[in-house]
Amino acid sequence: MFPANVLNKTLGINFPIVQAPMAGGATTPELVAAVSNAGALGSLGAALLAPDAIVSSISAIRALTDRPFNVNLFVLDVPQPDPDQIARAVEILQPLRGELGLPPSQLPVKYCEDFAGQVEAVLEARVPVVSFTFGIIDEAVAAACKARGTKIIGTATTVAEAKAWESVGADAVCVQGSEAGGHRGTFLGDFNASMIGTMALVPQAADAVSVPVLAAGGIMDGRGIGAAIVLGASGCQLGTAFLTCPEAAIHPGWKSALRGAREDQTLVTRAFTGRPARGLINDYMRRFNSIQHEFPPYPIQMALIWEIRQAAAQANRPELLSLWAGQGAPMSRDLPAAKLVDELMQEAERALNAMSR
Amino acid sequence: MFPANVLNKTLGINFPIVQAPMAGGATTPELVAAVSNAGALGSLGAALLAPDAIVSSISAIRALTDRPFNVNLFVLDVPQPDPDQIARAVEILQPLRGELGLPPSQLPVKYCEDFAGQVEAVLEARVPVVSFTFGIIDEAVAAACKARGTKIIGTATTVAEAKAWESVGADAVCVQGSEAGGHRGTFLGDFNASMIGTMALVPQAADAVSVPVLAAGGIMDGRGIGAAIVLGASGCQLGTAFLTCPEAAIHPGWKSALRGAREDQTLVTRAFTGRPARGLINDYMRRFNSIQHEFPPYPIQMALIWEIRQAAAQANRPELLSLWAGQGAPMSRDLPAAKLVDELMQEAERALNAMSR
Repeated sequence: MFPANVLNKTLGINFPIVQAPMAGGATTPELVAAVSNAGALGSLGAALLAPDAIVSSISAIRALTDRPFNVNLFVLDVPQPDPDQIARAVEILQPLRGELGLPPSQLPVKYCEDFAGQVEAVLEARVPVVSFTFGIIDEAVAAACKARGTKIIGTATTVAEAKAWESVGADAVCVQGSEAGGHRGTFLGDFNASMIGTMALVPQAADAVSVPVLAAGGIMDGRGIGAAIVLGASGCQLGTAFLTCPEAAIHPGWKSALRGAREDQTLVTRAFTGRPARGLINDYMRRFNSIQHEFPPYPIQMALIWEIRQAAAQANRPELLSLWAGQGAPMSRDLPAAKLVDELMQEAERALNAMSR
Repeated sequence: MFPANVLNKTLGINFPIVQAPMAGGATTPELVAAVSNAGALGSLGAALLAPDAIVSSISAIRALTDRPFNVNLFVLDVPQPDPDQIARAVEILQPLRGELGLPPSQLPVKYCEDFAGQVEAVLEARVPVVSFTFGIIDEAVAAACKARGTKIIGTATTVAEAKAWESVGADAVCVQGSEAGGHRGTFLGDFNASMIGTMALVPQAADAVSVPVLAAGGIMDGRGIGAAIVLGASGCQLGTAFLTCPEAAIHPGWKSALRGAREDQTLVTRAFTGRPARGLINDYMRRFNSIQHEFPPYPIQMALIWEIRQAAAQANRPELLSLWAGQGAPMSRDLPAAKLVDELMQEAERALNAMSR
């Protein structure tokens, strides 16, 4: 069906589908391995994991599959906390902590894992593929990946970011359209102006770089995969589509919300983590979206809401959780990951074959 | 190439391409007729025209083509001006009037043309196709169109809006993705949450209605057309792609800006007209975007900036004009409209044929 697919060859996969890395626990070793065993590329969202947890997750994946898989990290500088900004955020969030029975906020011991340590863990594990979001790596890290045979996927939200990834040596670029759920990967330009729809972004990125382009954002079925390929992508990255798989470890309330979602019930907000991210509109978002700019940037705000998030999940209050979702969420289905990969490829074939004379 | 195309049959066209109606003068009778003569559907953006001007424009089109064409209107209620809000907007805009040598603002005699009178003119002219944006018509207007053999295209930005148009009897629904240039057509929901990317919106709308769906937003070449068809659309509506045609009567500075645009240099703002619209970031936008919510709604703000717009155009200052553009603007080319239609269809065929086994 598809034209000779360079992405499959580069990544060692049969189907040009990447299960998006989603940090925070959704991408269990079971999900990653099921996707990879089905012939697509499973991805571990490792951004919130300490180096030793990354190592053990990779071991768990390897125990379940001998196919290629991907590990994703957020490219983060060392945080520079602003005490006044933190005090203001703590003040805003205090009533919510009270409602959840949490004691007054204690400042986090650390705001995020050490990026250099995470990279070291991934390098030592010699994983087949590593992908990066939120920023760009330097040439030394790129060279270290290449020396270990680890393929690199960079995340871009604009043509300029795609070109930057090509320059640093990425083997493929995942371009994230504005439809995508979860965090925006923007690292060069303005967050608002960089909200480019997948339909506009993919052909412009494909024209601008010579490495394979993965399309992400709003793709939930074989029609979307076929469309992305027609636009010039070599493959697709789907996140929301895999969240309702039984292997994805997300709060049951989040899964229910995805199943009942409407396409016009998501917004991009920095109210949860300090970095713009698309999720389902819920009570937390309605309460804090209008004052989102009072919160500190990622990862500081993320660290400040961590206890709230844990407590809300335990209290079964999804209305206070970040319910990341793309604008295709209403097309979610309930299928094991392997079956979903299989259906996606069959649908894509049918969608494209229907176009033949 | 394309599957049996119900849209072509409904609208009496050869190619499932609609040149988007763009109000304000861009869609000259020459542009509309050239597109229709080439086998696609030309559209007159008639929203700002008085009924007699609509009649004469339609006559001019008919003198140039005997093929089907479309006339577009904005569905507007009678404006309810808020004196305080207007006074504030006049105060904000006063320095700009001064810079352009305009006298202090006099309140407009009227804020917009009378929608009922415009509808009457279109009905009496028995045009082949009428399309509507910004709102929805009632069943009496729909019945009057049908009685005259005039096909109806409704504009929707969400699935709910698409279903509303089907319910009222539209013959086709144009779904406007967030990539689209110019005004947002949203009329039921929240403007921000209704910014759905084309990749996500088209399949969901196509699943929800049984009338043909036209995809709009970010489509600039045959890859985009092919992708939209794969997603489930019966055709496409392209606006920005036709703005650089020689037949499109827009300010030369606007054409230059389109040719030099980057995909991450547009924003949606209500700072120009009071209704959110996507255009190239320029001085006017930088100056007023952050206070856009102080301006009154469309069409009142539109009327308040009318003289500024005329003066800026005459003074050759495109940095003060609304430079509407979609996120595909960098893919603009310089071709006569007939040649553009021809190339688009050839490209779409090639893009889809490349997918055949």
